[in-house]
Amino acid sequence: MTDQRIHNFNAGPAALPLKVLENIQASFLNFNGSGMSITEISHRSSYFDDVINDAVSRTKRLLKLDDRFHVLFLQGGASLQFAMIPMNFLGSEDTADYVNTGTWSTKAIKEAKIQNKNYRVAASSEDRDFSYIPKDIEFSKDAAYVHLTSNNTIKGTQFHEFPDTKGVPIVCDMSSDIFSRPLDMEKFGMIYAGAQKNLGPSGTCMVILRQDMLNMANENLPSMLKYATYASKNSMYNTPPCFGIYTIDLVLKWIEEDIGGLEKMEAYNIEKAGLLYDFIESSDFYNTTAREDSRSLMNVTFRLPNEDLEKLFITKATQNGLGGLKGHRSVGGCRASIYNAATMEGMKALVQFMESFEKENK
Amino acid sequence: MTDQRIHNFNAGPAALPLKVLENIQASFLNFNGSGMSITEISHRSSYFDDVINDAVSRTKRLLKLDDRFHVLFLQGGASLQFAMIPMNFLGSEDTADYVNTGTWSTKAIKEAKIQNKNYRVAASSEDRDFSYIPKDIEFSKDAAYVHLTSNNTIKGTQFHEFPDTKGVPIVCDMSSDIFSRPLDMEKFGMIYAGAQKNLGPSGTCMVILRQDMLNMANENLPSMLKYATYASKNSMYNTPPCFGIYTIDLVLKWIEEDIGGLEKMEAYNIEKAGLLYDFIESSDFYNTTAREDSRSLMNVTFRLPNEDLEKLFITKATQNGLGGLKGHRSVGGCRASIYNAATMEGMKALVQFMESFEKENK
Repeated sequence: MTDQRIHNFNAGPAALPLKVLENIQASFLNFNGSGMSITEISHRSSYFDDVINDAVSRTKRLLKLDDRFHVLFLQGGASLQFAMIPMNFLGSEDTADYVNTGTWSTKAIKEAKIQNKNYRVAASSEDRDFSYIPKDIEFSKDAAYVHLTSNNTIKGTQFHEFPDTKGVPIVCDMSSDIFSRPLDMEKFGMIYAGAQKNLGPSGTCMVILRQDMLNMANENLPSMLKYATYASKNSMYNTPPCFGIYTIDLVLKWIEEDIGGLEKMEAYNIEKAGLLYDFIESSDFYNTTAREDSRSLMNVTFRLPNEDLEKLFITKATQNGLGGLKGHRSVGGCRASIYNAATMEGMKALVQFMESFEKENK
Repeated sequence: MTDQRIHNFNAGPAALPLKVLENIQASFLNFNGSGMSITEISHRSSYFDDVINDAVSRTKRLLKLDDRFHVLFLQGGASLQFAMIPMNFLGSEDTADYVNTGTWSTKAIKEAKIQNKNYRVAASSEDRDFSYIPKDIEFSKDAAYVHLTSNNTIKGTQFHEFPDTKGVPIVCDMSSDIFSRPLDMEKFGMIYAGAQKNLGPSGTCMVILRQDMLNMANENLPSMLKYATYASKNSMYNTPPCFGIYTIDLVLKWIEEDIGGLEKMEAYNIEKAGLLYDFIESSDFYNTTAREDSRSLMNVTFRLPNEDLEKLFITKATQNGLGGLKGHRSVGGCRASIYNAATMEGMKALVQFMESFEKENK
């Protein structure tokens, strides 16, 4: 039990900017002079129109999206997108390329398979336990899309640049690094991201979709599983996840107005991750698990000399106000998830703790 | 702009109990001594386990569910359920009965049709503009389920008792009246409810599902569209909508501990709706649109002598701190949505306003 906020290194749901949380708290009983909580406002009201339209505009400005792109808000997390992507974009004659870089890519592939869709695993890093990002991949020329996972939270790897797919649109799961850096949108037909890492609370999924992808989408699908339904109704065919969209809007405002945009966000993220990686490099007690050229700026995965020490490390860290450092249950070890909202103050506290833990237990 | 809270008659998202909102606000930066916001907590933590397990237990106690029933939390609103129900429960040889009592039933039927499933409209009140609930319906003996909409928000009608389906399980959309009254669960194979009317914020859908329904469900479905996925993982196959589930838990706690259970909740709802219906009965200026035996305790739909007066009524009501009284955009008129969280104080303020508006404009 603590009456103070901790440094939160959770992989997701993850830390949000304190300023955003304070803003939500302050107006929680009366949003924008409406006399209602944001959770009580009609999605058909001008109050909510302002919220969703602002979130869309900020997304377009931050990512420099032109008019070909739709910004949509769905539900069901990235996991529902794994199913909706092949459902919408693969007809019986079509095929897609998937790059397998870990658990989430594997799950995306599984959902194409369940639907009996044609797909090809164009590259995989499974041979070395997903510790790296494949390079020089040969993509099919006739694929409807190439599916990538930009950042792999469990193994701590990340695409630092996106492959040249010779014009085939990339469909990319960016759940764990969206808005962490500028993007060259020319390569992408679709980007999607469950909100709970870099964007807001769980339960909202942002989808950025190019019009030509919509044009090729299958028609005869359940309404809620069809991107066209969301694109034609500004994400309000049915009641959208209003609280999630509102929080996302505040997070985007924070990136634009407090951080100063995606170039500055990226510089800050490089600085934060750099502090931790440099320290781990300098130590022979801690070891990273990802190959150096593939290391994630969002999830720093590392091991200690043995599992008992890892257990002790996590316990002591928690006691010292550093939470969420346990590795994913499927791989063990330690992990510091340091998304946009992670602070330099938190990074310094973590490195300091790691230094003293090393001294005491070496 | 107001610095006070209004009386909120929105159809959904709708008013929540003030005590629940105050509780969320007070602990928003530090949930239960965790040092994190509820929006920042891992769904794999004991903090969140306590939340979701409490919400399930309270649901089971309130509705007196036995061990055959699963309590699940999904996303996508009732609208995604419209698609998932035939997807899961209708094989190529199966058929289902639907009762059409308005817009939402019609949408549920549409999603069965899109999937080329076999269904029969066993009864409909479309002949009289959905102003009543059909009685003495003849159901198919071999239907996999009978689909009903318990309360019709747009036309203001409600099933006051549920039909005898001769053992065929009822699958019921209770988005707008779940937990408003006790239920005889023997009749139901599945109940579902988008949260944003009687339960919590939009973006979470509660599903109560009997094991025998799960046993008959189709196997080869996308993971996120399969009830078995949720039932086998306590709704946490992927990250659930944590904030929504947390709010639902607080609302259920309020029903159990502050109201005193569903019998008392129903008595309070009868009292609230009664005040308004009695007043409208006594007036020849206002007229209800639903047939008397089918009137909803949750959505009171009424008309004024003409549309200009209705416009003025809604404007003046808003100026007097009575919000959300506009009828659904598809039907016009006026509507007071008075779900569980509507207060008697608000009802009295509404009736008082209606009285003086009548005097001034008759």
